[in-house]
Amino acid sequence: MIRFNCDYGEGAHPAILQRMVETNLVQTPGYGEDAFCREAADMIRSACQAPEAAVHFLVGGTQTNLTVIDAALRPYQGVISASTGHINVHETGAVEACGHKVLAIESDDGLLDPAKVEEMCRLHFADEAHEHIVMPGAVYISHPSELGTLYTRAQIEALRRVCDAYHLILFLDGARLGYGLSAEGSDVDLPFLARTCDAFYIGGTKQGALFGEAVVITNPELNRNFRYLIKQHGGMLAKGRLLGIQFAELFRDGLYFRLSDHAIACAMRLKRAFAEKGYPFYVNSPTNQQFPILPDAHLDALRPNYSFSYQARVDETHSAVRFCTSWATREEDVDALIADIRAL
Amino acid sequence: MIRFNCDYGEGAHPAILQRMVETNLVQTPGYGEDAFCREAADMIRSACQAPEAAVHFLVGGTQTNLTVIDAALRPYQGVISASTGHINVHETGAVEACGHKVLAIESDDGLLDPAKVEEMCRLHFADEAHEHIVMPGAVYISHPSELGTLYTRAQIEALRRVCDAYHLILFLDGARLGYGLSAEGSDVDLPFLARTCDAFYIGGTKQGALFGEAVVITNPELNRNFRYLIKQHGGMLAKGRLLGIQFAELFRDGLYFRLSDHAIACAMRLKRAFAEKGYPFYVNSPTNQQFPILPDAHLDALRPNYSFSYQARVDETHSAVRFCTSWATREEDVDALIADIRAL
Amino acid sequence: MIRFNCDYGEGAHPAILQRMVETNLVQTPGYGEDAFCREAADMIRSACQAPEAAVHFLVGGTQTNLTVIDAALRPYQGVISASTGHINVHETGAVEACGHKVLAIESDDGLLDPAKVEEMCRLHFADEAHEHIVMPGAVYISHPSELGTLYTRAQIEALRRVCDAYHLILFLDGARLGYGLSAEGSDVDLPFLARTCDAFYIGGTKQGALFGEAVVITNPELNRNFRYLIKQHGGMLAKGRLLGIQFAELFRDGLYFRLSDHAIACAMRLKRAFAEKGYPFYVNSPTNQQFPILPDAHLDALRPNYSFSYQARVDETHSAVRFCTSWATREEDVDALIADIRAL
Amino acid sequence: MIRFNCDYGEGAHPAILQRMVETNLVQTPGYGEDAFCREAADMIRSACQAPEAAVHFLVGGTQTNLTVIDAALRPYQGVISASTGHINVHETGAVEACGHKVLAIESDDGLLDPAKVEEMCRLHFADEAHEHIVMPGAVYISHPSELGTLYTRAQIEALRRVCDAYHLILFLDGARLGYGLSAEGSDVDLPFLARTCDAFYIGGTKQGALFGEAVVITNPELNRNFRYLIKQHGGMLAKGRLLGIQFAELFRDGLYFRLSDHAIACAMRLKRAFAEKGYPFYVNSPTNQQFPILPDAHLDALRPNYSFSYQARVDETHSAVRFCTSWATREEDVDALIADIRAL
Repeated sequence: MIRFNCDYGEGAHPAILQRMVETNLVQTPGYGEDAFCREAADMIRSACQAPEAAVHFLVGGTQTNLTVIDAALRPYQGVISASTGHINVHETGAVEACGHKVLAIESDDGLLDPAKVEEMCRLHFADEAHEHIVMPGAVYISHPSELGTLYTRAQIEALRRVCDAYHLILFLDGARLGYGLSAEGSDVDLPFLARTCDAFYIGGTKQGALFGEAVVITNPELNRNFRYLIKQHGGMLAKGRLLGIQFAELFRDGLYFRLSDHAIACAMRLKRAFAEKGYPFYVNSPTNQQFPILPDAHLDALRPNYSFSYQARVDETHSAVRFCTSWATREEDVDALIADIRAL
Repeated sequence: MIRFNCDYGEGAHPAILQRMVETNLVQTPGYGEDAFCREAADMIRSACQAPEAAVHFLVGGTQTNLTVIDAALRPYQGVISASTGHINVHETGAVEACGHKVLAIESDDGLLDPAKVEEMCRLHFADEAHEHIVMPGAVYISHPSELGTLYTRAQIEALRRVCDAYHLILFLDGARLGYGLSAEGSDVDLPFLARTCDAFYIGGTKQGALFGEAVVITNPELNRNFRYLIKQHGGMLAKGRLLGIQFAELFRDGLYFRLSDHAIACAMRLKRAFAEKGYPFYVNSPTNQQFPILPDAHLDALRPNYSFSYQARVDETHSAVRFCTSWATREEDVDALIADIRAL
Repeated sequence: MIRFNCDYGEGAHPAILQRMVETNLVQTPGYGEDAFCREAADMIRSACQAPEAAVHFLVGGTQTNLTVIDAALRPYQGVISASTGHINVHETGAVEACGHKVLAIESDDGLLDPAKVEEMCRLHFADEAHEHIVMPGAVYISHPSELGTLYTRAQIEALRRVCDAYHLILFLDGARLGYGLSAEGSDVDLPFLARTCDAFYIGGTKQGALFGEAVVITNPELNRNFRYLIKQHGGMLAKGRLLGIQFAELFRDGLYFRLSDHAIACAMRLKRAFAEKGYPFYVNSPTNQQFPILPDAHLDALRPNYSFSYQARVDETHSAVRFCTSWATREEDVDALIADIRAL
Repeated sequence: MIRFNCDYGEGAHPAILQRMVETNLVQTPGYGEDAFCREAADMIRSACQAPEAAVHFLVGGTQTNLTVIDAALRPYQGVISASTGHINVHETGAVEACGHKVLAIESDDGLLDPAKVEEMCRLHFADEAHEHIVMPGAVYISHPSELGTLYTRAQIEALRRVCDAYHLILFLDGARLGYGLSAEGSDVDLPFLARTCDAFYIGGTKQGALFGEAVVITNPELNRNFRYLIKQHGGMLAKGRLLGIQFAELFRDGLYFRLSDHAIACAMRLKRAFAEKGYPFYVNSPTNQQFPILPDAHLDALRPNYSFSYQARVDETHSAVRFCTSWATREEDVDALIADIRAL
């Protein structure tokens, strides 16, 4: 069984494990107040060209999303998200468990349309008598989205303008950020995100780390007492050093970007193979998640040897599925899958 | 600087890191549904003589406490805890953030007095008109407590009887459980806890793992849909295998207990050294945390070379401090400290 | 200015005020444990042919909705609602503030389609691996809906079957229940609701009382410790007698139903007047809320003398608006409005 | 049975009911945006000499406490209260249900000691590493306290200084405020409270209204979007006019203060009667709640004719009880009780 069902099926890049072994008996303070975390935070600030930004390391994505959103909102505010957004559909109501409504805006491609965000805000803030309705307080976007799609700079800037106009926090979920930054044709980079978002995170779990997400907060007000919320929500790792060690390795000599490039290259090979076979795509993704539409019979033929995830039924005999590549994808596994696709 | 300030200053036992390296590129399903987790859970069920128990692996202690307590309570219920309990003083109101009051009972030694728990429940449930007062719904104890003290079987059984009488959940925080099980004179063991508590956890973070706590739930009703709560509170590790790998190593050939024995042996050496010097103790602890009371001048003399934590001011010239040993404590560091104590 | 903008513009039926005056200096216990509340609860149980039902009196609708839903759900569960449902759009996220997601299902007419509820549940409960998604735990319907529409018995029974199949609570918001029961052609009555719902409420605020909603709970498990939740959420009126007095008057000699009949008669007169003028309706409502679509110029002509509420823009020159009648609507005001409609 | 068990046993002052009857069919906008509420708010601002203050009307005390405190705090903050504070013991964890810890400080007399508040804050804010502990964010005091005792201006000013030093909100629960203002020897008045507190409320429920509390907020930041929170927590009365009408009557020609004076006069007569009989007091209260300590046999003798509430067991044969007077207490009932006390 070769697994293309997700991008967190293996452990970590060997450089990370090696560094953990080397530093294992070094004694450090706990809770992320160690030299490894300071080094990693400095490297990230540098990569973001954001010397004043705060960098926090959390263990996982849901934890990160709920903590940032809880920090961003007052109790009567909600967070605007695409209907497909991870916080809206795959986090067991974690945002609601913090007391906040997810204000979902219908989306087919995983992206949030700035015009629709503008309209929602305009309707809410048009006059002063809207206290019966949840007030928009933040905008949540995923880049890449849950469907592998990407925002352009222009789209993120348009969202920024809406946020400025209505005093909303702009937060970008970068669980797969590297795979977005490495995608062909994307004009988004880390310094742009640091300039444009109030907060975003650089995913580690799906990008070569054992676990961990690096949250970059450029809005000082949002960052105020942020560590209290990390602790309260159970996200403060006692041996925080583990996160510092991992992100320092990922940002040393551009490893993070090389790993992302590898995953994208593998994904593009798969994409071409599906396209050459004439399969359409559920959505046109330039990133490590590919959503081809196959006859159910062909899927059945692949299942004994490959693991992939089910996305949606398209018609009576076709389904959309998801194949993920990652930093760890082996060329020979891609070769094997491509051969089997061609043989379908 | 030699650190005795906590028991999470180093990484993990080398066997754990080695196993992570060996298994690094094995592909597994995510979220704890892999073979490593199954193996570890089976080993723990076996050590607990509780073949029917559910075992869940979470990343850290605060996360574990809030998730179990949230599962245990209805919205109008609170959890009874010693005033010194970790949930009452050192988790930034994590239980309250889930909507529940911590019903604190004053304690000097870190232990919860069954008679006082009984009295609180008796007063509440005496008649039916107590809807203005938070209903007790669970009892939280730490073993060892935050002051290093231990319950006897008889005390835990007395708490169990109160819980049975008033339909409360009994939950034991075992962040340092091994150090309690290895303490001289303790009559508590894993099968006893599995028989007597509705839920307890076996700490990994402070006991030789990089991170991780193994929650054992023997009450099926408490376990119902428990994974939803893990996910909602951000505690479900994508690469859950990391937790399985660690606990499997800890429970292979009794490593967990050997590491605990080592920490206790080191702690007892320190305890004797302080006692021989004539220093009294803030509390009499048989576990890996020792709380001697020293003249402030002596503390100042130790500070350049040793890290320890401040507990409380005792009088104008004396303070209680905490020295922790752990699975990683080096004999030569204990030797050095003892020599310096004698020289004070 | 004649107000048709809502059904809570006046005080209360005079019989209620008179009874308050008469009983003003009678001393009673607080918090709803008085003889007036007992009498009213008995009258409601009798009207519902539900001698075992629990009856609680709360002050207002949002309070009632959030309290019942909080009682119905476990923390990881959400409540299914039409997208138009009051809890989804007009209660400032009160359900989310209790930690629960509103699982909205798109609706054009204010009603929840049992087939769509079935499908949502089927998808969720299809297998056991859905812990990343909020679990449906209750179904919320409004009868009449926010658009004045009504369920049939058959529809409510279909929802009941889904709830039975998936162990959901069925809760009916009856803020305007009388106006639904009095509507021509409706086959729903109180005994049916008591047999079919786990909980529902009989609105007072919009139906002749100063304030107050009578919650009928027929599911004993849902009712367990319900008063704790009323208190916790700030809904327990110290002088609970005021609620008992009001509902006793409303249910004495069928006053509640006579007041509802009056509002419906007034609404039907308005409906005919709009229809005769050739105006279409946004939705076909048999209850006290009417949603005609008028040219904007005609609306401007009515505005100086009549208050009504804006519903939606239909096209560039037409808008849907809402006219409400109530227990207090004066015939002469209806006459005047009809004359002015005809003159448009 | 003559009830001295609480101060909410009757309805409302007749002037209030009369005004409700007179205005019953006047049509007004809902949710407190009517002329009656504006009039009452103006009267209160005037009485407080606080022309810029915001005034909101809520239905009851628990609702008011939880809403103000939820507005005052960030998620990781708690509210400091005397251990006897209503929010700590008699509101079923309403503050915790909003996610916040009540930071209780032990109190024997119902009052919060400014020095202890200072100490708690000093310990917390001493350095920057306290993210494991709930941050104090507000101070809650009751005046009169739950034990009938009163703060002096000097004490409230001392609390204000602590709040200023540590950026805390100062909130005063005035459920029985009039009985405090009318107490002999008190130097606290409304303008002082408006100058000194960020928010306080003027109780109506226990002071002559059917229900209702008038919240005065002088801190504009605390008031921002406050109505959203009222709505979210279910405290926004549809017919808000009822609150405006009541408070306008209470503040017309000083009725509120006359009613308070009456209750105090009755209470002082009872106090003297108990004292003359030689009974000690549980606490020395100058307000409408009196806490004499009587032999149990004497209490048994009073029980057939008088209702009073149990406070605490003092020794094997004596108990402290509570007798309340109110705006509605009848002189002849006081006469009767005094005669029976003398006859014990």
